[in-house]
Amino acid sequence: MENPITPKFDSNGLIPAVVQDSDTGNVLMVAWMNAQAFNLTMETRQVYFWSRSRQQLWKKGETSGNTLTLLEMWFDCDSDTVLFKVKPSGPVCHTGNPTCFFQRLL
Amino acid sequence: MENPITPKFDSNGLIPAVVQDSDTGNVLMVAWMNAQAFNLTMETRQVYFWSRSRQQLWKKGETSGNTLTLLEMWFDCDSDTVLFKVKPSGPVCHTGNPTCFFQRLL
Repeated sequence: MENPITPKFDSNGLIPAVVQDSDTGNVLMVAWMNAQAFNLTMETRQVYFWSRSRQQLWKKGETSGNTLTLLEMWFDCDSDTVLFKVKPSGPVCHTGNPTCFFQRLL
Repeated sequence: MENPITPKFDSNGLIPAVVQDSDTGNVLMVAWMNAQAFNLTMETRQVYFWSRSRQQLWKKGETSGNTLTLLEMWFDCDSDTVLFKVKPSGPVCHTGNPTCFFQRLL
């Protein structure tokens, strides 16, 4: 079945993904996906990213065990950003915080 | 007063900003800021972006009237993404939808 909504990758072949907790509504993290990460996430319903610093595919929680189970996927109006609603299995941030957005400026 | 949290702009001088409705928790849009947009947003508490397609500063709602009033600002763990909690004065998307994320894939 063809789906008319397809991600618009940028000139580096990447698309930003916003990850939101489906229960609390908290924004948990933002990371990047290439086509492989996107397809694996769709197929497995576990969230994969592309690490720009390490230049490699990265399954969220691969080492920490804190995986993200995909429940909903949304695209924005021009399909160049994706929003995932997920169920996290533990703290999302490598610092141990439940969300990466724990530094409040205002 | 100096604040120890400062945005980490990328090699193009930009940082992505996730905009979330402070009342509903809905993610409304993602756009990019340069230093000028960031500073204007801080000063005026109205959200400014940098348009990558038009290569110009852009006050959200400048033409539509649908501005975003900044209530909270958060940074992620490595300070390379910013999260704004805002009060929108009208539909955020140019399509007339309340959020840009209205295309559901899953």
